[in-house]
Amino acid sequence: MMDLSIIQRPTLLLDERICRANIAYMCGRAAASGVRFRPHMKTAQSRRVAGWFREAGVDSITVSSVGMAHYFADDGWNDITIAFPFNPREIAAVNAIPAHVRLNLLIESTDVADFLAVQLTREAGVWIKLDTGYGRTGVRHDDDTTIDALIRSIGRIPRLQLHGFLTHAGMTYAANGADEVRRLFEQSRARLVDAARRHGDGLLCSAGDTPGCTLADSFAGLHEIRPGNMTYYDVMQTRLDVCTTGNIAVAVACPVVALHPERGEAVLYGGAVHLSRDSVRGDDGLPVYGLLCSLNQDGWSAPIEGARMRSLSQEHGIARIPEAALRMLKPGDLVAVLPVHSCLTAEALGGGITLDAIPVDHYAAHRMSTSPFSGMHT
Amino acid sequence: MMDLSIIQRPTLLLDERICRANIAYMCGRAAASGVRFRPHMKTAQSRRVAGWFREAGVDSITVSSVGMAHYFADDGWNDITIAFPFNPREIAAVNAIPAHVRLNLLIESTDVADFLAVQLTREAGVWIKLDTGYGRTGVRHDDDTTIDALIRSIGRIPRLQLHGFLTHAGMTYAANGADEVRRLFEQSRARLVDAARRHGDGLLCSAGDTPGCTLADSFAGLHEIRPGNMTYYDVMQTRLDVCTTGNIAVAVACPVVALHPERGEAVLYGGAVHLSRDSVRGDDGLPVYGLLCSLNQDGWSAPIEGARMRSLSQEHGIARIPEAALRMLKPGDLVAVLPVHSCLTAEALGGGITLDAIPVDHYAAHRMSTSPFSGMHT
Repeated sequence: MMDLSIIQRPTLLLDERICRANIAYMCGRAAASGVRFRPHMKTAQSRRVAGWFREAGVDSITVSSVGMAHYFADDGWNDITIAFPFNPREIAAVNAIPAHVRLNLLIESTDVADFLAVQLTREAGVWIKLDTGYGRTGVRHDDDTTIDALIRSIGRIPRLQLHGFLTHAGMTYAANGADEVRRLFEQSRARLVDAARRHGDGLLCSAGDTPGCTLADSFAGLHEIRPGNMTYYDVMQTRLDVCTTGNIAVAVACPVVALHPERGEAVLYGGAVHLSRDSVRGDDGLPVYGLLCSLNQDGWSAPIEGARMRSLSQEHGIARIPEAALRMLKPGDLVAVLPVHSCLTAEALGGGITLDAIPVDHYAAHRMSTSPFSGMHT
Repeated sequence: MMDLSIIQRPTLLLDERICRANIAYMCGRAAASGVRFRPHMKTAQSRRVAGWFREAGVDSITVSSVGMAHYFADDGWNDITIAFPFNPREIAAVNAIPAHVRLNLLIESTDVADFLAVQLTREAGVWIKLDTGYGRTGVRHDDDTTIDALIRSIGRIPRLQLHGFLTHAGMTYAANGADEVRRLFEQSRARLVDAARRHGDGLLCSAGDTPGCTLADSFAGLHEIRPGNMTYYDVMQTRLDVCTTGNIAVAVACPVVALHPERGEAVLYGGAVHLSRDSVRGDDGLPVYGLLCSLNQDGWSAPIEGARMRSLSQEHGIARIPEAALRMLKPGDLVAVLPVHSCLTAEALGGGITLDAIPVDHYAAHRMSTSPFSGMHT
């Protein structure tokens, strides 16, 4: 229960109960299939939330940057995969990750393996990143020549231990509903597992995306799963039929600053710098930048039927709201906005509070305040 | 001249020479027309850059949030307009703005005026926000009944001094080239000035947008202009023929982390959390998330012909690069990305460096580290 008067500006609210249920659900799916659950922290980027995973039995995590690895290593996490192609410019920061951490890196080229052979001063596990259809990063799953060359390169470097193949089936985000998510994830899983079988005994497989990990019928042949967005879910996931709005664990409390009943709209304090710019298409083909809920001291309601954020400027959000609901609002009231893409919204706000007004940290605030280039020292 | 080896991660680079030239250009336009130049700090959000405006003779600024007003007030600025509809939830923070600041607020409803009559404990100037065609915020320029009611409400509040009417002709951002920018700005200017003439003597007029303020033939009848994006400009402004890529004062240095010559692409460390999500359409109708330049110790080149950021994930950018340029790259190299929307890019990165490696602050870093809800205290 929260005193809403403490909220002055756009503020990320986190429903701990929903978030813990999301965590428990994915822990259960992993356990039922006997796969390791290595959640991706890129969504929450929060030590507090990571602690909830820990309480649910999780002891290994995925991060998306070297700085984020430090952030969680400093909080006692000791099994961390940096799920981003190794960036040679960060070799010093990688070498400086505390020795207690079992660190895993992603490699997709022999150039990078050769660089690590000379420059890496600590031990690390390695995953070869495979592209199983997304077309973003990684070696093509069927490019056996390159995969063989990489395995040989890595095998010659004593400090590196090859675990196996890792993929992110990001194409599930473009799926047309749950069945297609399942089909795309299954295709990716099969390609990954086939590649591992072709290239020798003992190679493990790691798969990633939230839509697939939430819905897939089978994790057969996988060693671990790494979903992250499932921590909070968001409107984009509801459009894929991956979850319902009731599974969304975060909302942004936005003050109403102006009303325009003549056009059925309210102006909210809540723009692109708070919600981020991602959108989904409404049934009418127009963009939706968030769904609107009413807010009280116990949390937010189901979405208000027919209401949505229709456009965002830097600091303003323009909300279309049906007449009956709009009539109830006045400047200074709060509405809750369910984000389209919770990872980017959490990053933009750089922290929030639970419904009990307990602070929820976010790595972005740490990153900005500790960078040597940061704005604090003029 | 800069030692590029200090750059490990996506880093905002600011070319001070270009930025100061942009500032001088707009100062010159304002002076030539006898209007006050009250630059919008929402783009740079930087005390260092604000200092360059001060050196060019600027003594008044515009900000987009109450927190940003404090940030600049604490740096000695004493004439600040908060160009955002007054948010009743921030009354305490507004009252706490140091007394040395001549503060101006935006009002667009009598409800808010009535609230201020009771709650405001300091003096403030007031601008009535008019909608001159953008359809986002403000009273319609021709809604004389509402405008009259607002003038009367404000007139009854001794602590408030009405300056006049303020608009933001944001529709210029949807223009099809320079001529349409000029036409839309001129229409907005005429509506604003007409409204001021209808509603009594001595009402001033304030106009805003960067496209219009850069290109307009006339500022007749205006008291002040408030462009902000002109501090840095960006790819979006080049598409409107408002500037050339040579006027863009910021670029993001991004490490190359993977190469995919088979598809003509490089994977950059530089994603939505660094560049933001705004895009423009390329000549082929596909989205462009930034233009690519080569980078050396003296700065960045003109854009590489045919190269562009074609998609962004949270941390990855996928760059399409012609074969000859792609062949020159290896993991660990840097490329410079000209941002599509520099305001959001600067906000996402929360600070940067000049080409002499001098830190450039940004309010976002300050905001995240000082909020009571921020991530630093777990």
